[in-house]
Amino acid sequence: MEKLGKQTVRFNTPPSILECSSIVGPKEGQGPLAKYFDKCLTDEFWGEKTWEKAESKIIKENVTSVINKSGIPTNEIDCCFAGDLLNQCISSSFGIRDLQIPYFGIFGACSTFVEALSLGAICVEGFAKNVLCATSSHFCSAEKQFRFPLELGNQRPPTSQWTVTGSGSSIISKSGTGPFITHITTGKIVDMGISDANNMGAAMAPAFADTLVTHFLDTGRKPSYYDLILSGDLGYIGKDIAIDLLNNKGYNIKNNYKDCGVLIFDKENQDTHSGGSGPACCASVFSGYIFKELKAKKINRLLFIATGALMNSMSVQQGETIPSIAHAVSIEV
Amino acid sequence: MEKLGKQTVRFNTPPSILECSSIVGPKEGQGPLAKYFDKCLTDEFWGEKTWEKAESKIIKENVTSVINKSGIPTNEIDCCFAGDLLNQCISSSFGIRDLQIPYFGIFGACSTFVEALSLGAICVEGFAKNVLCATSSHFCSAEKQFRFPLELGNQRPPTSQWTVTGSGSSIISKSGTGPFITHITTGKIVDMGISDANNMGAAMAPAFADTLVTHFLDTGRKPSYYDLILSGDLGYIGKDIAIDLLNNKGYNIKNNYKDCGVLIFDKENQDTHSGGSGPACCASVFSGYIFKELKAKKINRLLFIATGALMNSMSVQQGETIPSIAHAVSIEV
Repeated sequence: MEKLGKQTVRFNTPPSILECSSIVGPKEGQGPLAKYFDKCLTDEFWGEKTWEKAESKIIKENVTSVINKSGIPTNEIDCCFAGDLLNQCISSSFGIRDLQIPYFGIFGACSTFVEALSLGAICVEGFAKNVLCATSSHFCSAEKQFRFPLELGNQRPPTSQWTVTGSGSSIISKSGTGPFITHITTGKIVDMGISDANNMGAAMAPAFADTLVTHFLDTGRKPSYYDLILSGDLGYIGKDIAIDLLNNKGYNIKNNYKDCGVLIFDKENQDTHSGGSGPACCASVFSGYIFKELKAKKINRLLFIATGALMNSMSVQQGETIPSIAHAVSIEV
Repeated sequence: MEKLGKQTVRFNTPPSILECSSIVGPKEGQGPLAKYFDKCLTDEFWGEKTWEKAESKIIKENVTSVINKSGIPTNEIDCCFAGDLLNQCISSSFGIRDLQIPYFGIFGACSTFVEALSLGAICVEGFAKNVLCATSSHFCSAEKQFRFPLELGNQRPPTSQWTVTGSGSSIISKSGTGPFITHITTGKIVDMGISDANNMGAAMAPAFADTLVTHFLDTGRKPSYYDLILSGDLGYIGKDIAIDLLNNKGYNIKNNYKDCGVLIFDKENQDTHSGGSGPACCASVFSGYIFKELKAKKINRLLFIATGALMNSMSVQQGETIPSIAHAVSIEV
């Protein structure tokens, strides 16, 4: 692998995304992508006593699923990257606990899945045969932790996003027939002074624009190189801001740009306001839907950019703005 | 780099630890290692309004310090790995925010610093010239978040450990005269059923033993190969358990084994019970003290194993046990 420009790494032997798996909650299972997910749960508890335990079970069952689908023995997976939104990333720790795979915990908020793919690809080109990448989030555990008790029935502002319940997981491998991770562009922290925790799209859009422009400058590519530019979860509001920001910088992405937070819910009928969010949003959309489109060669060149808001509920109370980040992986068939 | 045995990676061109920096709080500045730290604060707030803001300032000033000491321009640092104990790792996000370096957030609780060194070394052998690694923790923000309000003056059980206020940071580099990271052994999650959040040493000791034995099996080395085996923060109780566990597995580490949590405080006079802990414990002890010993060739072969307890305050309340992990790096002059 080699450094390209300021923030990009190009792989000489691009790692293959061998297999993916996705589990989502009941709301996601009623959304427009339902048929693509491996499993849609019928309730938010999945037989557990708490939402946190349910989230751990979701990531646990989902990594078991992707390992089974891949046919790779667990002891041939060299390491695992995982993370989530819960304090101290417990759903990942509890979900990965029984696997007995060397484990790197990571945190990039909603950008975590692409952070995992990036580090996983570095390890595969470096020393690993197979690397497991996974993230999870849960609407109920996230609302409880970051906002209000669900029982309060609090109103949600129109700019707010709906945390996806679910998990996405991938196995990246030295062997395999693709799709291949050809480049990664790792984001730096961007903070434009947004402090409204109910408007994450606005906070994260500048980070998306920064990484996207850097990727184009580092690689010499233009937006038209890609069949699809896919953001993690800017949602409706963040997506519009991102298009404007890019336009101002001379890049027209209107024609080939989609957002996972927009894709996963039906805005009109599901009351999800600005769209989906959470580390499981882009992870489940990629693992469930986009991976199949790549395999079927309906998408041949994908730039997948996940964004994350690196705050917690206390930092907002202490008057801090919301630092954001965006990580990109270039995936080609 | 190449995989060695089950969980170890050997570097063909071992990355050099170019420079380190450490900032610690007032209590650490009254401890036995005071003279080794770059800066000892005189109060826990450092002019900030909250402990969380103080912790962000500590990591921010400390990474600025290590960059200045190294003489490397910030734009030649290819990426940064950082993490901490605060919910959603905010002290790292806020501390790294202004640096404009591609950023990977990581979470390994008290093992985070060695996780950072491990991933940093992989990047340096892979594509990077220079990688920044940093962690922080703060006694007051940790107590507030994980245990009781400090104002309550709650009694601490004898098994409890004292979260270190401070930060440790390192720059790993392709160039440099060492010490060199020759191997990493990445831990898997180990959970032996301990559920007492006031006895982290007992929870983490089995993970330490697991990674240590794996390292010996993977490399064919014995404890006597190393001048020093250094654990992150098992503390007095965990250290004794670790020695026993290793003894039962046929390894005698009594003669060349120390623990950062034991080293950083004076147990008798500082009322710190089982010793120090937190991501800044081993980070500041390594960056302040051990790095100088390596540079002076008083230690030539170091096995540095940091342990982490991957729980949060809610998981304990929900009756969960404490999953733990230990990551090792082998460092030679």
